[in-house]
Amino acid sequence: MVSDFDRDTIAEAQGDGLYKAEISGNWSVGGKPNGGYLTALIARTAGDTLAHPDPLSITAHFLRAPTPGPASLDVEMIRSGRAHANVAAGLHQDDGECVRMLGVFGNLAAVDGPTAVDAQPVELAPLEQCVPAQGTLPGGVEVTLTRQFDSRYDPRTIGWARGEPSGRAHIGAWVRFADGREPDLWSLLLVVDALPPTVFDLGLSGWVPTLELTTHLRARPAAGWLRVWVRTRFLIGGYLEEDAEVWDSEDKLVAMSRQLAIVPRGG
Amino acid sequence: MVSDFDRDTIAEAQGDGLYKAEISGNWSVGGKPNGGYLTALIARTAGDTLAHPDPLSITAHFLRAPTPGPASLDVEMIRSGRAHANVAAGLHQDDGECVRMLGVFGNLAAVDGPTAVDAQPVELAPLEQCVPAQGTLPGGVEVTLTRQFDSRYDPRTIGWARGEPSGRAHIGAWVRFADGREPDLWSLLLVVDALPPTVFDLGLSGWVPTLELTTHLRARPAAGWLRVWVRTRFLIGGYLEEDAEVWDSEDKLVAMSRQLAIVPRGG
Repeated sequence: MVSDFDRDTIAEAQGDGLYKAEISGNWSVGGKPNGGYLTALIARTAGDTLAHPDPLSITAHFLRAPTPGPASLDVEMIRSGRAHANVAAGLHQDDGECVRMLGVFGNLAAVDGPTAVDAQPVELAPLEQCVPAQGTLPGGVEVTLTRQFDSRYDPRTIGWARGEPSGRAHIGAWVRFADGREPDLWSLLLVVDALPPTVFDLGLSGWVPTLELTTHLRARPAAGWLRVWVRTRFLIGGYLEEDAEVWDSEDKLVAMSRQLAIVPRGG
Repeated sequence: MVSDFDRDTIAEAQGDGLYKAEISGNWSVGGKPNGGYLTALIARTAGDTLAHPDPLSITAHFLRAPTPGPASLDVEMIRSGRAHANVAAGLHQDDGECVRMLGVFGNLAAVDGPTAVDAQPVELAPLEQCVPAQGTLPGGVEVTLTRQFDSRYDPRTIGWARGEPSGRAHIGAWVRFADGREPDLWSLLLVVDALPPTVFDLGLSGWVPTLELTTHLRARPAAGWLRVWVRTRFLIGGYLEEDAEVWDSEDKLVAMSRQLAIVPRGG
């Protein structure tokens, strides 16, 4: 049985680096497909023909929001070397480009350099103290994305859901797929962008569109719960970074991402 | 009188998005042009024809190291909207692509959204306690890059230069151009990558090539000294992130960058 994520992130090769895809409506916020979902779809397609199995760093620029339905992708191999390959790809719909990706791929199973970690796993409240997500956001916005996950939010970071924003721009949760699919590197590209915006706990609301999202994949995740923590330190004139860390069930950092997003004027 | 930085980062338009450039030898480490310098050259070229004056997020993928000398650039306008423009560009030398850039441009003078900052300026030692840079690295590697700056390093972060690495992967410095040119957004693209590798203070040495470097430009810098702090929390199997923050003389965060780099096997 194919998981929703696998069904919705695999495109069909047409030759010459061209692919056909169906953008699913299962990963949307207010009808708009989530940026992390689109990134996973594009990166997976871009990695399709590579000898290098793993995405290492994936950057996506969001140009216009596509709608669920047919789309096409074009993949450009920039350089394929011994250890790494660089690939660019575009996601198109109705003759307009929606997302441009630039990525480097490699093999995380083959790493053999030094290791030195100067960090602790994210300090998420214990699972049993965390709170399941709602399928709607303030204002009645429907979030199909939420139903795809079993996610449990740290209550200290979702004060906004109780009408009591903490005043800090952060959000943390335990996350796994609702259908039992285990995490892999492709799904981490989605997970880093799957939580509500950090700025909700500043008392802001509404859509927070992403201009650019870069994810570093650092290790293949173990099976089980992921812990995700996203933080914004600098909201300046409506522009903000969202820094996400994802840790796996064996206390390994598996992904770090940073995105540049906007709180629309008056938001 | 034109500053070295301006002279070395302006390319000559050839029409149809093509440019000729001269890669300068003034910004090299061991004869290899610095990645931040190349990024500044490419981004400045990519922004040449835009109505949007400011780089906001610039990603560079490093494919192969060019040498000082003639090079060409090709610029692709992906999307030009009211507030933002997305551009891709490649830097080529001897028929091979050396760097691919993907960037989004806008206008930082026009921002009018909310501001909330949850951070303090980097905790650099006072200028008078900091140490000027040397023009050579361990092993006698020549660094022409160093001569371009008046840089003063926090002694707590350059233990490696005294043969006493601190064991933490960090480096911090006060930085300004040696020729008095004041900082701007273009020069920040260089400055985020202009300090020696963080892992030297772990006792590692040698070349630490960058796979991917993304810089967010958050505000136009004031004149005067910049404070730069770069930190690595995760060196995993030879792959590491370097996170840089740059603060200006008015205590504003002006740039944040993250790069994915490698300590070569046995490094």
